[in-house]
Amino acid sequence: MVNETQQTCSGSSSSRSDGSSSGSESSKDNSRCSTPVLDADRHERLREKMRRRQEAGDKWFSLEFFPPRTANAAVNLISRFDRMGAGGPLFIDVTWHPAGDPGSDKETSSMIIANTAVNYCGLETILHMTCCNQTKDDITGHLQKAKRLGLKNIMALRGDPAGEEWEEEVDGFNHAVDLVKHIRNEFDDYFDICVAGYPKGHPEAESYEADLRHLKEKVFAGADFIITQLFFRPETFLKFMKDCQAIGITCPIIPGIFPIQGYHSLRQLVKLSKLEVPQEIKDVIEPIKDNDAAIRNYGVELAVSMCRELLDSGMVHGLHFYTLNREVATTEVLKRLALWKEDPRRPLPWAVSAHPKRRVEDVRPIFWASRPKSYIYRTQEWDDFPNGRWGNSSSPAFGELKDYYLFYLKSKSPREELLKMWGEELTSEESVFEVFTCYITGEPNRNGYKVTCMPWNDDPLATETNLLKDELEKVNRRGILTINSQPNINGKPSTDPIVGWGPSGGYVFQKAYLEFFTSSEIVTALLKVLKKYELRVNYHIVNVKGQNITNAPDLQPNAVTWGIFPGREIIQPTVVDPVSFLSWKDEAFALWIEQWAKLYEEESPSRMIIQYIHDNYYLVNLVDNDFPLENCLWQVVEDTFELLN
Amino acid sequence: MVNETQQTCSGSSSSRSDGSSSGSESSKDNSRCSTPVLDADRHERLREKMRRRQEAGDKWFSLEFFPPRTANAAVNLISRFDRMGAGGPLFIDVTWHPAGDPGSDKETSSMIIANTAVNYCGLETILHMTCCNQTKDDITGHLQKAKRLGLKNIMALRGDPAGEEWEEEVDGFNHAVDLVKHIRNEFDDYFDICVAGYPKGHPEAESYEADLRHLKEKVFAGADFIITQLFFRPETFLKFMKDCQAIGITCPIIPGIFPIQGYHSLRQLVKLSKLEVPQEIKDVIEPIKDNDAAIRNYGVELAVSMCRELLDSGMVHGLHFYTLNREVATTEVLKRLALWKEDPRRPLPWAVSAHPKRRVEDVRPIFWASRPKSYIYRTQEWDDFPNGRWGNSSSPAFGELKDYYLFYLKSKSPREELLKMWGEELTSEESVFEVFTCYITGEPNRNGYKVTCMPWNDDPLATETNLLKDELEKVNRRGILTINSQPNINGKPSTDPIVGWGPSGGYVFQKAYLEFFTSSEIVTALLKVLKKYELRVNYHIVNVKGQNITNAPDLQPNAVTWGIFPGREIIQPTVVDPVSFLSWKDEAFALWIEQWAKLYEEESPSRMIIQYIHDNYYLVNLVDNDFPLENCLWQVVEDTFELLN
Repeated sequence: MVNETQQTCSGSSSSRSDGSSSGSESSKDNSRCSTPVLDADRHERLREKMRRRQEAGDKWFSLEFFPPRTANAAVNLISRFDRMGAGGPLFIDVTWHPAGDPGSDKETSSMIIANTAVNYCGLETILHMTCCNQTKDDITGHLQKAKRLGLKNIMALRGDPAGEEWEEEVDGFNHAVDLVKHIRNEFDDYFDICVAGYPKGHPEAESYEADLRHLKEKVFAGADFIITQLFFRPETFLKFMKDCQAIGITCPIIPGIFPIQGYHSLRQLVKLSKLEVPQEIKDVIEPIKDNDAAIRNYGVELAVSMCRELLDSGMVHGLHFYTLNREVATTEVLKRLALWKEDPRRPLPWAVSAHPKRRVEDVRPIFWASRPKSYIYRTQEWDDFPNGRWGNSSSPAFGELKDYYLFYLKSKSPREELLKMWGEELTSEESVFEVFTCYITGEPNRNGYKVTCMPWNDDPLATETNLLKDELEKVNRRGILTINSQPNINGKPSTDPIVGWGPSGGYVFQKAYLEFFTSSEIVTALLKVLKKYELRVNYHIVNVKGQNITNAPDLQPNAVTWGIFPGREIIQPTVVDPVSFLSWKDEAFALWIEQWAKLYEEESPSRMIIQYIHDNYYLVNLVDNDFPLENCLWQVVEDTFELLN
Repeated sequence: MVNETQQTCSGSSSSRSDGSSSGSESSKDNSRCSTPVLDADRHERLREKMRRRQEAGDKWFSLEFFPPRTANAAVNLISRFDRMGAGGPLFIDVTWHPAGDPGSDKETSSMIIANTAVNYCGLETILHMTCCNQTKDDITGHLQKAKRLGLKNIMALRGDPAGEEWEEEVDGFNHAVDLVKHIRNEFDDYFDICVAGYPKGHPEAESYEADLRHLKEKVFAGADFIITQLFFRPETFLKFMKDCQAIGITCPIIPGIFPIQGYHSLRQLVKLSKLEVPQEIKDVIEPIKDNDAAIRNYGVELAVSMCRELLDSGMVHGLHFYTLNREVATTEVLKRLALWKEDPRRPLPWAVSAHPKRRVEDVRPIFWASRPKSYIYRTQEWDDFPNGRWGNSSSPAFGELKDYYLFYLKSKSPREELLKMWGEELTSEESVFEVFTCYITGEPNRNGYKVTCMPWNDDPLATETNLLKDELEKVNRRGILTINSQPNINGKPSTDPIVGWGPSGGYVFQKAYLEFFTSSEIVTALLKVLKKYELRVNYHIVNVKGQNITNAPDLQPNAVTWGIFPGREIIQPTVVDPVSFLSWKDEAFALWIEQWAKLYEEESPSRMIIQYIHDNYYLVNLVDNDFPLENCLWQVVEDTFELLN
């Protein structure tokens, strides 16, 4: 009876439980992951993700962006990546702007924008690349750089020839297929390759059929999937798809969707793509061409109905959106299609990076909780990332953070806004306390402006921190200037909307944590109070010069967040690590100057107040180890103030 | 005010928090341990342990044993190591028996006994080694072997010359000091070296003073500490110690204590050591020389009073006991001195090995919980041991277990006793169920014998398992033949006398675990029942042929015991690992045959019953992932029986 179930190994596609295995020779199999897979997505390549979604009948979408022209536009685009990333795109792609030095290190280059999307926003990303008018060496150089930056997917395109008199070069890159072949020759299977399909045929192709044959060549040269040019009628795509299948193209073909967002952008796109807008669309648009809102509404309507028809055909599993770097229309379409899935559950308590090197990373110091991009930047040279235990890491030192100007590290808010929030003029340390307090309470400052960010937190208070709001307000008013904190959690379900993370069926835990700047007077009292809590509270207290006071045993890290999941090892994604705290200290103190003091004139009283705090305050972190009991850290602070009075 | 506390880094002697450190260059310091130090003892060498104990004013003791003559005596000596190890000796030492092929692989050799003490009993161990009449190559060979086996301490002795006409050899090893120099020359600082001191002077020395000079030479050649020959009066030792100090010997000098245990052993020892028994002792002993108990009582009394005097002198921090391989007298003396410290708290839930390679080991599969020596044996070739996560281990396969005859793997009980416990004659599978049930209940079997061990458990039921006794009894009666189990624990203090482990101030957790053999009929029903518990219970079911059924995701290990401690990362010392389960399966099935079936004649009905079970039963393990809820595994079994009826 039992034999009928033999060789079953449910829940795992990489089954090793073959009936014949004797076990003892094979006890340490390489096929086993070295870290618990909390999120299969992190370990799969894009084509595998597509396959898995298709098999599961799980529809998806992707988003196309072009690189911005200015550094400020880049800052905004990155915020857009973060916001639109929340809707759950399977990937985004970044176009290649031959005119914009696309492979360079400029913050607006295609390469750097794609790098940012992968590494700092954690998005699966396709980098476009065109090949005409470029040398083999140039192209190889770009591809090597892309690989080095952790990019894993290339959209291989011919690109637009420069000038009218373009002629095919012998042995040159004349067609996208040459680029596909080159990538496969030089980089083997490293990249997933996407190619473009033209539902109406490429405008320069001899015929629709000839163009289909070109597409087949690209696929047979090694492309993994196809994204199509935009089109206006669903039947255009469905016919194209059937024609592809008929000539033996079996890879995924993803329709490119262009929600019409305005009269001019439509005209421009049509001109570039040499497509014709169907009469029925022109008939609607022409009369309302000066009414942007009306056109956008119509565009959304049209896109939704076309997407519905595509999805209902059963032939389409994913939709690719030409966003034109805009949010509203595409988001609206996705929400109406119920494809926009804001999943409040997080695989880990912090946002994971999509760089393949960081695939196994599952533990970070808590200090960078509000500055994940800075953490990623400062650890970008590491070859290995800690997983399982922080202490196991053989990673090198943190990189210096001198590049506060970099667009993924600087505040989203311009100087004028920051001045309104943090004060045009500071008169005393107390006016700094007020800024911190307003940030916590969400109430307007004395000039009527809400403080929505701080040098250490570019976003409003996290939902979790809100749990501590009242207590935080009280202590900030009195000069305990908090920059990071978490409540203690004793086994909440991993699906808890506020503190949950990881797969369902688990339990998450936290030790209470509080990190703040404060004066040396308060530190002196605090240290006396901490003696009473010696066995319960771990502390690290450091000033800008690195004078360091701690009771951490043997400089070991203290796990402050962990989760227990069915069938897995324990995950402990955040630690308070005494050693990296000293690297964080440099950054935390520098932010006073870089982000705040420098808003003011040199020698101005405001600037001198911030400089004084920078020079004289201490950075303190406290952990209450007794997570099952009520958080004692507020009592510690209370006792400290009592001692001072 | 704060400056007075700067540069303080309490709780750590390897402080890195110097005031000048800028932090960012030094964030990944090599001096940091790669694993949480739960037990500093595991990371220190013997001389450091001595120093730390002395600094802490913490008195200690050590125990000397000689290698046994027979394999059976070796089995008994190992049990004695385990029992006397429980009292907390700082180390044990094993003498070198030149006549007994001391460096060989025989189970009774000095080398192998010391190896067993270190690796299988987890005891810090000193191996004696003598040098006279041996070639340099022989000695180097012994030392290399000792190092390979994980021995870290050598007692360097001259040894007794063979025959009367011994003469010093030029360039030979004529004195212990030659051996000390040789060890330091060839092995640098690898070994801690102990040498012998003679409170009355060596019998062959020209004078007491000349002998002191020899001792000084040995120390200056590189010895780390001194253990003395036995003596009968405390003042003998105290004078000796002062004389040593006077000539510049500053290393620890440990008095050798010989509790008189019998008339004949005393006479023999006195003869060998050429010591004279003081008249006041002779006066007591002679009249009672035929009354062993009286002599032993006197010996204990005498030793206790001498040890008290030594300890009270303030010059003595540790006591070394010549046990003569006996337990009673030494244990009695230690208990009366309050040096015997049975610490029910365990650094980890399993007994750690003292091999330096295993210093960082802190996670093991739960399967070997009752067979730690076998686990150590089967993993002895591993170069790295898992720490932090099981899944991180790059360890090779488990060694085959063919050596059931080895004295550290076989049952402490002789065949006749096993037959009484497990049945001289089995009549059916049910008579096997009875044996399992009697082992659980502690009640005598039908022939009136208590079943105190099983092939999978050489000791009576663990205290923790006792918590499950009633449920276990019920299921064993019905053919769920349990061999391993643990209750679920949701955050008990780490000092809990039954389930606690690790340093105080922590919390320990467990997932409920149940492992058993059972028939294929029961397995079929069980699998149907398990469908209901799919998300909650992980299972592995395997038969002797390796047919394997599991719902473990991606063959990942499941952490089933973990602990949260102040200021440390999470420790998860036991896992249910799908891959190593297949290695354990081989061992667990083989034990039916090796330990049980082979007690009976070939072809006998008893043997055939065991063989039938071996060939047809399944080995099952179940984990209830919902550790905060009531253990559901009993309900799973209940449902299974219900389905069968």
